[in-house]
Amino acid sequence: MTNPSLLILPGDGIGPEVMAEVRKIIDWYGAKRDMAFDVSEDLVGGAAYDKHGTPLHDDTMAKAQEVDAVLLGAVGGPKYDDLDFSVKPERGLLRLRKEMDLFANLRPAQCFDALADFSSLKKDVVAGLDIMIVRELTSGIYFGEPRGIIEEGNERVGINTQRYTESEIARVAKAAFELARRRGNKVCSMEKANVMESGILWRDVVTEVHQAEYSDVELSHMYADAGAMQLCRWPKQFDVIVCDNLFGDILSDTAAMLTGSLGMLPSASLGAPMANGRPKALYEPVHGSAPDIAGQGKANPIACILSFAMALRYSFDQGAEADRLEQAVETVLAQGLRTADLAGEEGVTPVNTSEMGDAIVAAL
Amino acid sequence: MTNPSLLILPGDGIGPEVMAEVRKIIDWYGAKRDMAFDVSEDLVGGAAYDKHGTPLHDDTMAKAQEVDAVLLGAVGGPKYDDLDFSVKPERGLLRLRKEMDLFANLRPAQCFDALADFSSLKKDVVAGLDIMIVRELTSGIYFGEPRGIIEEGNERVGINTQRYTESEIARVAKAAFELARRRGNKVCSMEKANVMESGILWRDVVTEVHQAEYSDVELSHMYADAGAMQLCRWPKQFDVIVCDNLFGDILSDTAAMLTGSLGMLPSASLGAPMANGRPKALYEPVHGSAPDIAGQGKANPIACILSFAMALRYSFDQGAEADRLEQAVETVLAQGLRTADLAGEEGVTPVNTSEMGDAIVAAL
Ligand SMILES: CC(C)[C@H](C(=O)O)[C@@H](O)C(=O)O
Ligand SMILES: CC(C)[C@H](C(=O)O)[C@@H](O)C(=O)O
Repeated sequence: MTNPSLLILPGDGIGPEVMAEVRKIIDWYGAKRDMAFDVSEDLVGGAAYDKHGTPLHDDTMAKAQEVDAVLLGAVGGPKYDDLDFSVKPERGLLRLRKEMDLFANLRPAQCFDALADFSSLKKDVVAGLDIMIVRELTSGIYFGEPRGIIEEGNERVGINTQRYTESEIARVAKAAFELARRRGNKVCSMEKANVMESGILWRDVVTEVHQAEYSDVELSHMYADAGAMQLCRWPKQFDVIVCDNLFGDILSDTAAMLTGSLGMLPSASLGAPMANGRPKALYEPVHGSAPDIAGQGKANPIACILSFAMALRYSFDQGAEADRLEQAVETVLAQGLRTADLAGEEGVTPVNTSEMGDAIVAAL
Repeated sequence: MTNPSLLILPGDGIGPEVMAEVRKIIDWYGAKRDMAFDVSEDLVGGAAYDKHGTPLHDDTMAKAQEVDAVLLGAVGGPKYDDLDFSVKPERGLLRLRKEMDLFANLRPAQCFDALADFSSLKKDVVAGLDIMIVRELTSGIYFGEPRGIIEEGNERVGINTQRYTESEIARVAKAAFELARRRGNKVCSMEKANVMESGILWRDVVTEVHQAEYSDVELSHMYADAGAMQLCRWPKQFDVIVCDNLFGDILSDTAAMLTGSLGMLPSASLGAPMANGRPKALYEPVHGSAPDIAGQGKANPIACILSFAMALRYSFDQGAEADRLEQAVETVLAQGLRTADLAGEEGVTPVNTSEMGDAIVAAL
């Protein structure tokens, strides 16, 4: 039997630093749990642009299609701000999502007990919070045509197209309902059906999927603006939230920030099952490349490590091992170890990126 | 000299109740400050649909074009949920915005001292908060063509188009810079230039307007997802935020909720100057029609009353009178008077909608 394969794309900014800690975890699983992975590494984002003049080389894209799972750090940085749109670091990530057809982006927004004080929200509003945002990731205004900047009657016009087919909506709705069944059994779907026809179709299709196959799950609908408000007011009313690519971008970041645990939050982007039954999959932290603190040992590797825990759960069917890894993170937090983003409280022990990784390995 | 004219459109749900309190204020200005208005009243939203089969009658639209300012309550309600998209209550409001060409929507997000405890955010995060969101209101994905639900290869496809011309972006950017000069002199522009070409054009044009005419104002740019995060983390970093119609919808609601003062927040939607020099203008509370509490005397009329204060300031050049009215609201809050949405604290005096209106008149 061959080992499962992982492609690691550290990317830019703090990406390589946090990924180095994930490799320690992967090595531990190989050595101690007899779960060896075939790991390869490659470039994405600005790092790929620097070497190849493109944010994702075709060879890397091909490799990503073949492996069992991709782990990505983060992309982007001010150095690349003036690049043409077509070669910006983000395009590398978007190409991976699109060509691997990773339509379901799972973004847990969880408040870690030890960190509830870091939220800008009141403790009772966020303590114990555990919601899951399922964001459609391969369609909508991120990818719709026509798009571009054209000249029209002496001025420039910027155009993007929101486009959703029934089947694109149905498959992400199913993913949300399936997840809800294994959690709190509630789904809230968010759109702007009051002003956008694509939102009307979204609401209709989610309702149809619900009636046909998931009527045991509680379904509600909210306009996205009201949803953003309710996330800020009382996020615990939600279990699973499902929404389109653009709303999901904003609402999942809002939810992540609310928890106070931004440096801690992982994500999984899943597609259809491959021949071996595993879904196409990419795992990445919710946080960005944080170029301002890159290379200083200040980055928190936990979001990236928990992304690997999601890989264990969703790609490799190792739920118990995922639990073990998540438990190790909790243990280390309970010990008071904190990277710079979470330092400042009394009685905690400040550690750098690498010390945090080592501590989690030790806790395993 | 003729009196300035006002068209009042109470709309649905709590709209008529809160507007009744605004009329008391208008009457007070007529009687005590020699500022009489010619007030007419008409239907919009579900109320208009019930009578005319359309959420905005052409005669009402024509009146709105002629008056000096429109005051609107709120539109919508579950009763109208199953109506066809083209006659939904919201279409009435959107038609007013579009045909009056009210391109600059000013949404102050202000935390009233007396209410800081009502925020789900920590008090030090929101106390004293005073930001202004300038939302583009007549273009973008709300109005872009093509749009609709079409059949394509056996399935439905939902389509909307984000479309911004250079001049549409420039005029709202100017509005934001002008406002900033009279406030904290800072503008933050938000878009998704990393994934949308319309966002690139947005960023470019805002930058050009800044360089050409407003380089004395501090300008920054943020991706809208990061902006949503920063609003939740530390909103006081902002002074004026400018963004497109859809981002503005979500971000302004987020900001409003953060303040804990949702029932208190007004808005102004301004267009080009009319022949008399006054801008085309519509004023409305940020809150919705709240059908669940309609008709029970529970609604808070303050947002609608403060919308009239904005009318005094922006349409009638009566800044001092606007200050007076805002001061009267502060006085009443300081006296401990609270409508149902804000009751619950110890030592406050619960009042109904009408008592709140009376108290503000008394404080004037
Ligand atoms: C980096 C960027 C293209 C990306 C997005 O907008 O999807 C990011 O914000 C995210 O949420 O993963
Ligand atoms: C009622 C609705 C059409 C409207 C909008 O989406 O613009 C509302 O949410 C607002 O923000 O004024």
